[in-house]
Formats: sequence, C-alpha cells, structure tokens
Amino acid sequence: MNNWVINQNDFDIQSKKFYESIFSLGNGYMGVRGFDEEEIRDAKHEINTFIAGVFDYYAPGKTDMVNSPNFWCTSIFVNGERFAPERGEILEYNKELNMREGILKRKLIWKNEQGNETLIETTRILSIDSIHNAVLSINITPVNYSGEIVIETGIDADIWNNIIDDDQVKTSTNFCRLFAEDGEAIHIDNIHIIRLKTTVTGLKIYEGFSSEVRHGGSILKLEQNIVQREKYVADKFTFPVAKGEVYTLNKFISVWTSRDKYAGSLEDQVLQSVKTAKDLGVAAMIKNHAAAWERKWRISDIEFVGDNKSQKAIRYNIFQLIQTNAENDPYVNIGARGLMHGRYKGCYFWDTEIFMLPFYIYTNPKAARNLLLYRYHTLNGAEENARRQNVEGARYPWMSAVDGLDQCDTWDIGLSEVHITADVAYAINHYYEATNDIEFMRDFGLEILIQTSRYWKSRFTYDSRKDCYNMLFVKGPNEYGGVVNNNLYTVMMAVHNMQLAKKFIKKIKTCYSEAYQLLAEKLGFKEDEVRQWDEIIEKVVINYDADKSLYLEDDNILNLEPLDLSSVKEGDRPLYRKICFDRLQRYRVLKQADVILLMLLLSDKFSTKEKLAAWNYYEPITAHDSSLSYGTHSAFAARLNMMEEAYKYFIKSVCLDLDNIMQNTQEEGIHFAALGASWQAVINGFCGIELEQGNLKINPHIPKQWEKVSFRMYYHQCLLKVSVSSKAISVTYEEGEPDELQITVANQPVLLLKCKEEIISIR
Amino acid sequence: MNNWVINQNDFDIQSKKFYESIFSLGNGYMGVRGFDEEEIRDAKHEINTFIAGVFDYYAPGKTDMVNSPNFWCTSIFVNGERFAPERGEILEYNKELNMREGILKRKLIWKNEQGNETLIETTRILSIDSIHNAVLSINITPVNYSGEIVIETGIDADIWNNIIDDDQVKTSTNFCRLFAEDGEAIHIDNIHIIRLKTTVTGLKIYEGFSSEVRHGGSILKLEQNIVQREKYVADKFTFPVAKGEVYTLNKFISVWTSRDKYAGSLEDQVLQSVKTAKDLGVAAMIKNHAAAWERKWRISDIEFVGDNKSQKAIRYNIFQLIQTNAENDPYVNIGARGLMHGRYKGCYFWDTEIFMLPFYIYTNPKAARNLLLYRYHTLNGAEENARRQNVEGARYPWMSAVDGLDQCDTWDIGLSEVHITADVAYAINHYYEATNDIEFMRDFGLEILIQTSRYWKSRFTYDSRKDCYNMLFVKGPNEYGGVVNNNLYTVMMAVHNMQLAKKFIKKIKTCYSEAYQLLAEKLGFKEDEVRQWDEIIEKVVINYDADKSLYLEDDNILNLEPLDLSSVKEGDRPLYRKICFDRLQRYRVLKQADVILLMLLLSDKFSTKEKLAAWNYYEPITAHDSSLSYGTHSAFAARLNMMEEAYKYFIKSVCLDLDNIMQNTQEEGIHFAALGASWQAVINGFCGIELEQGNLKINPHIPKQWEKVSFRMYYHQCLLKVSVSSKAISVTYEEGEPDELQITVANQPVLLLKCKEEIISIR
Repeated sequence: MNNWVINQNDFDIQSKKFYESIFSLGNGYMGVRGFDEEEIRDAKHEINTFIAGVFDYYAPGKTDMVNSPNFWCTSIFVNGERFAPERGEILEYNKELNMREGILKRKLIWKNEQGNETLIETTRILSIDSIHNAVLSINITPVNYSGEIVIETGIDADIWNNIIDDDQVKTSTNFCRLFAEDGEAIHIDNIHIIRLKTTVTGLKIYEGFSSEVRHGGSILKLEQNIVQREKYVADKFTFPVAKGEVYTLNKFISVWTSRDKYAGSLEDQVLQSVKTAKDLGVAAMIKNHAAAWERKWRISDIEFVGDNKSQKAIRYNIFQLIQTNAENDPYVNIGARGLMHGRYKGCYFWDTEIFMLPFYIYTNPKAARNLLLYRYHTLNGAEENARRQNVEGARYPWMSAVDGLDQCDTWDIGLSEVHITADVAYAINHYYEATNDIEFMRDFGLEILIQTSRYWKSRFTYDSRKDCYNMLFVKGPNEYGGVVNNNLYTVMMAVHNMQLAKKFIKKIKTCYSEAYQLLAEKLGFKEDEVRQWDEIIEKVVINYDADKSLYLEDDNILNLEPLDLSSVKEGDRPLYRKICFDRLQRYRVLKQADVILLMLLLSDKFSTKEKLAAWNYYEPITAHDSSLSYGTHSAFAARLNMMEEAYKYFIKSVCLDLDNIMQNTQEEGIHFAALGASWQAVINGFCGIELEQGNLKINPHIPKQWEKVSFRMYYHQCLLKVSVSSKAISVTYEEGEPDELQITVANQPVLLLKCKEEIISIR
Repeated sequence: MNNWVINQNDFDIQSKKFYESIFSLGNGYMGVRGFDEEEIRDAKHEINTFIAGVFDYYAPGKTDMVNSPNFWCTSIFVNGERFAPERGEILEYNKELNMREGILKRKLIWKNEQGNETLIETTRILSIDSIHNAVLSINITPVNYSGEIVIETGIDADIWNNIIDDDQVKTSTNFCRLFAEDGEAIHIDNIHIIRLKTTVTGLKIYEGFSSEVRHGGSILKLEQNIVQREKYVADKFTFPVAKGEVYTLNKFISVWTSRDKYAGSLEDQVLQSVKTAKDLGVAAMIKNHAAAWERKWRISDIEFVGDNKSQKAIRYNIFQLIQTNAENDPYVNIGARGLMHGRYKGCYFWDTEIFMLPFYIYTNPKAARNLLLYRYHTLNGAEENARRQNVEGARYPWMSAVDGLDQCDTWDIGLSEVHITADVAYAINHYYEATNDIEFMRDFGLEILIQTSRYWKSRFTYDSRKDCYNMLFVKGPNEYGGVVNNNLYTVMMAVHNMQLAKKFIKKIKTCYSEAYQLLAEKLGFKEDEVRQWDEIIEKVVINYDADKSLYLEDDNILNLEPLDLSSVKEGDRPLYRKICFDRLQRYRVLKQADVILLMLLLSDKFSTKEKLAAWNYYEPITAHDSSLSYGTHSAFAARLNMMEEAYKYFIKSVCLDLDNIMQNTQEEGIHFAALGASWQAVINGFCGIELEQGNLKINPHIPKQWEKVSFRMYYHQCLLKVSVSSKAISVTYEEGEPDELQITVANQPVLLLKCKEEIISIR
C-alpha cells in the first residue's frame, strides 16, 4: 500500500463525477476538475477550469468565478474511431494521483469496435514550480494492430458558467457565458493563443499551447494542420503507427490574465511562457514541479506510524490545501470548494479563517499572511456592507469575492450569519500569536480590528429594561438554529473581537505611536469608543445554566422540539435532504458544532467541567450535516481525552471526500474547510498544540491506532519538528531565530536550543 | 366638479408612468395599463396586457403572469409624421376616466413639426358586458390643414415579461419571453388573429381584431393593406383628409384562451366574437358596457354628501375593485396589483381575504364565493406546501398563482409569514356569517378548515418546561418585525382557525351528517384531533401586560431599540427605501398595523380599554410603509370614535394611488388591498357595520366632513340600503328573502320588513 497515491482501478461511468472531484488539480494560480482529456461538457461531467481571482458579474453586484477555456481537450482517433472510455471496451484501467509529486496519471487499454487495442498513458501536471504552466503528455501504443492514429489537441473556449444557487437544495439551471464575444486565436511559431475578455469586468484571459508528437526519441515531422472555429483552436496530427511502438503527444500550456504582473504584452507573455516550457521539455517540467512538491512536503507532511488509512487521507487533505492556495497573491483567498468547483460561485467564507488558516499559519506563514491581507484589501467592501446595512464600521461578507461586497443572496444566511466578521478578527490574532508579526498588526491588523469592533458596537441592541445588550436576529454556525437572539458563538466572538482591538490599540500605541496616530486620524478614531466597547463587553447576554454548568446556544434552544436523531437520520446523509430548513429550525438538532466550536476557539474561557457539559448536551443532538463539524468534534474530544470519539470523528473528517461522507463530493467538489479541520484535529486536537497568550504548549493525547505522529511547524519564525508517541514527545528546533525558544511540553516548561538538539519528554 | 371622473389636463412626460397606472382598465377577464395606443415598449412605460389566470413558468416551479399581446397599438401619421405626444407640440390635452360608464377617453390637439394641427379623440373600453371584447375608437380631425392620414392599427405580440423580484428594493432586469415561437397571424373576413402558446404550460392565447375607418356616417372604401411581420399584424389605411372633417377609426378586439369554455375551435370563437362586436358597432358596444356598469354601481356605490374629494376617491377604489374581479371564475383570484401590473408576478396574497373580500361579500356575494372557491381549488397545492415543509394539513402559500404552490422566493417572508393560512379560514367564516351559505361550508369550507387546523396543530411547538405551545419563527403582518416567536396576530388567528373548524364540524355534522361522514373519511379525520386542537388553544403563548392592558406584538418587541419616527421618516416615503430591512427589524417600529389589525378582525376578543392601550402604544411607532396600514388604522380609530385620526388615515388610504402616497404607483401599479381597506374603513369603520355571531349590527361614527353617507349591502341574501348622517341612521330593506329581517341599529334591535319600509333611527 502506497500512502502517497490515490487511485481508481475500475472504470465506472457512475462514479465519474466523484472521481472528477477527487482528482482535481490546482497550483494556487489555477484549478481544474479531474475530467479526462477526451471529455465534452454535458450533464455528466463538469468541465471546470478556474483561475484564482477571476470573477465576473452575471447580475448587478453578483459575481461568479469564471469558467475558463479547457486546455486539456484532446481527441484520439484509432483507425477512425474516436476514443471514449464509455464506447468499445476498457481492458485495463488505472488512474492515480501521486500526491508526493503532484502528478495525475491514467493508464488504460482501450479496445475499439474494430477490435484495435490501444494502450493510452496520460500524465498531467499543473506546475507549482511555474504556476502559469500546465503540461500534458500522452503515450499511445497500438497493442495488437498497426494503423492510423489521429490526435486533435487544443483549447476549447466554448464554455459556460453554471450559476449555482446558494441554496443547497436547489438545482441550478442558470447557465450563462461570462465572456464577451471574442476568442479568435492567433498562431505564432506553432504556438496557438486563445484570447478572451470577461463580459463586465473586461479582464483579459489568454491561454496558449504548443504540441508535438514524438516517436523513438525524436519529434515526428508531420504536416501542420490547425483546426480553428469560433471559440476553439487545435493542432491535428495524423500519422501511421506500428504495433508495439510508443507514440507520445506532448502539450505545453500557459495561462495568463491581465490580473498578472508582466512586462510587454499579454500575448508575448504567453508566447514566451509556452516556449520556455517547451524548451525545457516534459521531463524537466515534471522534475521541477516534483522538486517543488518535495520542498512543500518537507514542511507540511504529517507522518502516522501504524495507521495507513489515516496516513493516506491526511496527505490528501494536505495535498489539496497546498495546491489550491495562491501563496503569493494577497488579493485572492480560498473558496469553500477551492478552485475546483463552481459551488458557492467560488466565494470565500469563514471556512478560510476558522478552518483552513491554521494549516497555513503553522506550515507557510507567508501564505497565511497573504490570506489575511486579502481581508485587508477588501476592507472597503466590508465598510460598504456595513453602510448598506445601516451599521457602523466594517462587516465582512458571508460570501466574499473580488471586492468584499456580500455575494450571498439569502436573508437567513447572508444577512444573519454575521459571525464571519469576528472570525476574521480571531484569525488575525491567531496569526499574530503564532508568528509575532507585529508589523502586520501595525500596518493592517489593527485597522481591521477597530473597524470590526465599531461594527459590533452598532450591531448590539441595548435593552434599557434589563440594562443589557442583546444580539438580535443572528444565525450562529449551527445553520439549523434559525435566526435567533443571543447566539453564544456570535456574542462571545464579537466580544473577543472588541477585546482584541483593545489589546492591539494598546500594543501599537506603545510600540509605534506615530503609526497609531496616523491610523486613528484616518479612521477618526477616538479612545472613548473603547469605553462603549467596554460597556457592551460587560453587559452582553450570555445564556448559562449554572446548575448544569451548561452554556446555551441561544435564547431559543430550550423552546425547541426534541428530535430523536437516530430515528430520522439515514447514515451520514444530511437531514436537510429530507426535512426542510424551515422545519429543522424548530427541532432541537444542530447542523454542526456551535458551542463546541466556540469552546475550541476560546478554550481558556471555559472550564473542563463546562466543556464536558457542553459535549454531553450538544454532541448527541448534532447531525454533522456540515462538513465543518466532524473535525471540530474530533479536536474537541481529543483535548478532553475522549479518544474513541475523537478518532471516530477524525476518520469522518479526514476521509470526508475520499469516502464521500456528505454524499455530494461528486456534485459539489472538495470540502476545503473539512481538510483544514482534519489537520487541526491532528495538530491542535490529538497533538495538543495550543497557544496561550502567544506561548506554545504541546499537550498531546493520541489514539491507540497511532504508534507515532510526526510533523513540522513554524512558531515565531522557527521551524520545529514534533513527534508524539504513546511513550514520548520529542521536539526538535530545526531552523530559525532566536537561539533559544521557550515552550511548554506536557505542562513542563522546556527550553529549546537552536543546536537542533532533540528534547524528549517521557510520558 | 364631477365626482365620477378622474382626469389629467396636462401632458407631462414625467408623470406618464403614474397616469398609466391610474388609467388602468380591466373587466375581470383581462386588464391593461393605461398606456396610449401609439406607445412602444421601453423603459418609460410598461405595455402590460394581462389575462386572469394566465400564468407560465419562467423557472422550475415559478410562474409569472403572462404579458399578452398589445391589442391597442395604433400609429397615426399626419402628412408622414408619426404621432407621438412627446414630439411636436400638444396644444390641448385632456385624458379622463369616466368611472360611471367605465370609459377611458383622451382628447388632444397635436401640432406636428410641419405645423399641422390635428384633433385626436380616443375612446376605449374593456367591456364588462361582453368580457372577451375590447373596443377602441379614434376620431381624427385636421384642424388647420387638408392632407393625408395614415393609420396602422394592429396587435403587437413582440412582448416580454419582466420578472420582478419579490424583494421590493431590488430592480428587476430579468426579461424573458413566455411564448413559444409561434404567433403567425391568420386573416378571415377582414379579421386578423394572432395565435400564441405559452412556453411551458402550452396555454393558447388568441387575440383577434377587425378595424374600419368611417367618415360622414359610412365606412371608407379603402384598399386593404395588411402589414404583417413576425409577432405582429396590422391594418394600414391611407386616405386624404379635409380640414375640419372628422374621420373615425373603429377597432373591435376579442381575446380568448384555451382556459375558456367554448364550442368548436378557438379560432372560430375569436372570429365570431369579433364579428358580433363589429355587427353591433361601437355605440351599442359602449351602451351595453355602460348599462352593465350602471347595474354594478346601483349596488356598489357609496355616496358621500359634503366631501367631494372622498366621493371621487372612494368611487375610484370601488371602480378598480369591480373591474379587476373575474366574478364568474372560481379558478382565479385578485393579484396584489390586480390585472394591471406585473409586480409580485401577478400573485394572490392575503390582500384578497383580509382587505378586498369584504367588499365582494357585501356587494357581490357570488363573486366572493368564487374568490373563496379559488382557495378550495388550490387546496391540493396548500397540502403540497405543507408536505414540502414537513408539516401536516394544508398551508396556503404567501404568494399563490395557478396551483397554490408557494411562489414566494424569500425565506423571511415566504416561509415565515404563515398567517395567510388563518386569514383564509377567517375569510371563509366571514363569508358564511354574511351570507348564511351553509352549502358552501358543507361542500368546501369545512374541508379547508380541517386541513388548515391540522397545519396549525403541527406548526406550534410544545414546550414541556412551561407546558405551553409556542409559535416559533414566524413573521406577522408587521414586516419590519423580523422572524420572531409568538407573533400575537398569527397565534390568535391560528387559534381562531381551529375554533372555526370546531364550530363547523359541529354544525355540518348536525345538519348534513352524511356529507360530514364522507368528508371525514376522505380526510381520515378523527374527532380526537379536536382534543389536540383544544389543548393547543388552551396553552398557546399570548404576551399580555395586564398592568397596562397591553397586548404585545411578539416575544421580541420590548427588546428592540426605540426609534423616533419623526426624525427619520420623510413624508410618506417608506423607510425601507432608506434603512434596510435587516436594520429595521432591530428598531421598535412597525411597517404596518399588526396588533391593531388583529383587534379589528377579532374585535369581540378585546375590550375597549385594551384597544385604546394598543392604539396608544402602536400607532405612534407605526410607519405605514405598507399600503395595508392606513385603511386599517382608519377603521380602528373610527370604531373607537377617534374621528380626527380616523378621517386622516381614511384620506391617506382612499387617495393612496390617486395622490401617490406610497410614491410607487408609477412603478408598481394600483394597490388593491388599500382599495378594499378604504371601503372597509367606510363601511365597517365609520358606518360601523359589524357581524357578531352572524348578526348584523350598525353602529356608526361618521366624521364631521360628511353630512351623510349612503350605500347598499347584501346581508343573508337581502339587499339593504343604509344611510347615515350625524342626525339619523336609515335602513331600507330593498330586496330578498325572508319577509322579516332582525338587525341591530345603534345598539337597538330593529325588525326590517320586506315592504321596503325605511327604518329611521334618530341619533
């Protein structure tokens, strides 16, 4: 069993859409679903090619992530019959994703209707070494015949966007083109470039490619035959083949948009980029790509000894998190379905800040910083959202795209699930605590914290009868909970947001008084505003049953009708497929972790007794109908040393897409928040990595299934290697400044020396 | 001053859309906005022609009222210049709606760019005597020239539906065609017929016309010239004209659809219908139409002595209520904007049952019965809504069209404003109390009452801690109130619904035991269900402050932030144009009457003290940002003898469209609920007509502005004439069975004799 490879051994038309999701590739710059080269867009598979940050308006104020031209498209004709796995017969089949090297391969023998058997071996990459490039290579071997092969390979720009309704239970039938009528190809030096422009934003998208056919070590000299029609350009090669010989198509693709930085024209840029790749050749392109992956894995891998299923699955989670992240681009973020699916119109949610970001904070702090800079760059949009909603400050949108204006169309979610704003604030502090990046706080973070605190101030409603502040009409993380008053998660995260603003006002004022003054002037900020925050912090409504040490989710939860989950829930299938949201809100049932999540995030605000009370109350009534729930429950249970529950939930989370737990991976693509939640379950849950006031603590509880877990992480710019087994915890300080680093391991202070000494704590 | 005529003396391009709404015509079968014959569809005026009950799907499950071909369209060319009031110069202008006869006329002198002055006099009717027919007649008189006139008159089927978003603050840009590509015209005997079919439902719509030009008492013999292109057919007449002579175009139009009953083919039906109208001629068609209006007015008019403004306005309200009602069709209802505007996609709301229906109950009981039968005919849809929302029984949709499935797309309104179901039940009983139509209850009413009571039973949520039933997550009539718990209106109307079911179960079981048994079997109804209803009725949550005798709107109202309405509201302009709904729900401000409306509907459940307490609490915080609010406040105030407030609110309601109080009559058309609310303010408010357990009581309080009010009404199939002055109340029993009728006048029992004796009660 190779724990680096995900594979599919059987060709099965029924599971095509599922594998298309699983085999999605990305490199941060672009993402593609794992559809095959010969596929044509129809209801069975979605031909999606997305470029980070490329959105266009399909209606006033509403954007969709633009489906860009398909650059894989390749038709192979064997003695006149077009290759398609659903025709003829598949004699052998294997498709595999090598996660270590980031390579997707397919190997199959196809017998056509004439009985010609052809071995087809496909290799593709989206380079993470050279992010504008994709490479496709296809080996074709006639097994039992000699004859004629025709290959047509090109770029198909005859594509549509399917505008997917935010409402999960609606089927989307709204197709529209987001490209202006354009798309004529140009041809220079055997390189073909399709040039498009988005309809409203006028963003230019140029895709170019060059292809060649090789045999016996050299390029076949064939008559050049260019196929061109509206929105399509291809090379067509016709050549005789001999039984048993290998013929190779190589295709070098390059994608650039007017969002990118380049000198000269976009056209020249694409030309140059294709040429460079072609000059390097397939082997070198793949080698550079694999080497870049090796560098990623050195920092990001988690090794489990004794648990192959978890090992492979956690790698898949990490692989997807790495390959969808535009680590150098501070103007884009990560969609709830990454760059691989149009669900949620490519929008960015709290999924990033609360679920995915910790992975980047600890393995790639620069990437984490860029993700947070995206929020800084959309602060104007957040301020505009607040203005439109007649409140002060800045309100981050539930669904964010190019400009930070809310893309969500629904009342109960878009207007009511306001905790996202506090989630952004939480994440900023989390980043700071882990990195000590005070310049980030000075230049960006504090401004966000002040503007979001102003929002919260005006979002609470004062009740003069009881001298308290209510948070009216909100929806917490539990989306079955209706629009309610005083959702605990929202209230406490909002309070946390205001407390963070206070903390950093003090800090920045002390360390950078001039910068602070400039910011205060820019925002018209006066310090008596802090007194208003203090008054709210003091008087918010927190529903707490002291007798039971139980925190209540909101004002409404005790009013609800009990529901016996086991009697209605069928396996892992979400309840909302069977009972509508309107009805679900009157049952005492949670879609996902709410109080539990809060207690994980603000762990030091709650006692163990309170955490156990919350677990005992909420866990039995949680349906886990959101992919965000399992990982949270796993981490929470692990911290409370409930290893069986923790492991059970971990497996659900880490295999969420591979095992299709939500039963919608085929239609919705990969659940990115769950990837991050799985990572957190391991690192922050089982391995017990925690920051307390910026101090690193390691206090693990690992399940019996694991002999040992090892991983690396950055902490205050230092790289640590951590290994945990049932017997010992080992921490090695591998790289970084300063020479000494103080951390806490299993409740004991430990001094790490940069000499790479390994500290072992016997358990 | 003629209190039967609405007129416009100035031509002003700015007010075009407003007058297009005001001059809307209808005859129950079809409705048209008051656009002029020469107008072409563009952003400035909507060319809307609607046919009752003709809906088609623009998306799965979602319908729009189909905009049908424009049969008025007529172009006049004076010496080659196309007549359009915005070109050249208008020397005289008068457009008037004669409400007594239902005739819309326009008279103008147009000076074209060459200086030719032409007197153009237009007359149009949608016949209420012969509802498939429309007639247009245009007199053309060259004032200062002799020359050439060209008239092109036809049917334009090149029309679009503008799918208007339910959300009032969104602008709709969604245009779509609801007709399949069809529409070729046929021509028989100088009659041209356009034949269309709706895209999804395949409903056929045929419109035909024939036209002629007359001069000096006879038809001009002109060469027939038919203009035909895709989706358009017209007659074109070219003739010389002499200064001072009158030339008349007559156009006879007929509209039929496959919804209608007819023998033979639809084509023949239209042909015959045009022919019959043409044979009768314009004068006779108008005479028959005016005679039908005279019969309507005899029953429906309200006469005010001493208040011309109110007199004209109440007639406008009554005129629109009559002309939009398909009195003989039990499969359609009345849209919130009638048949005259596409706002709300032509859908039917509680506006009918609570606001308009009383007018029909008391002036045209058969029409009222048909409006309620529509609810019976859509009971299946209501049952399906309940199933989809995982509750029992039948849940009437917030927005209803062909099949009773909910057309409303929004969460907070469509799913939460559930009181509509109880409103239907209320209306059924109201109809019964006024008509004594027990057969209706036996055959239709009881089934609705049982199914809706079952819905309510499953819509309440039991709270075992407090042993009570909460109504969770509902929105009451006050649409600024958010989605809340225990909205008083909804709770008490739901209780009333269940009480009505109980009452009629008993009654029908007694009077028609066999019919009752059949119904019980059909519904699987067992009488222990009544015990469950009783338990809920006993244990619902009613928020009442006994110290203040104050009923509270919902669980949330005291939590809200006070808002000084006078500081934010600018005139009558709705607040939601300035502050978003999300923000408004946190202010203690009402969009419209909520508790006040409840107290008007269930008057005998509240003491005068409680009503005054409610008025004093809610009236100052009500923004009247719904057109449903003013009439309700007027009636309520009148009953409490607060005559100044009652009159002030009455004027706002009765002039709502004529004075454009909501500032949206131009874009949204006529507010039909307000028409009905105005009528109720007069009859049930000022004149104090009330039914107590089915017994008619007349207890008037009329404002000082009125010397006398007179009207007729049906009560238990008897026609009464009522006159109220400050000095006396007179009641005359004009027609009907039985010979004696017992009513209560000014708290005194009175015996009316059929001998048409006038009973006068001195005040």
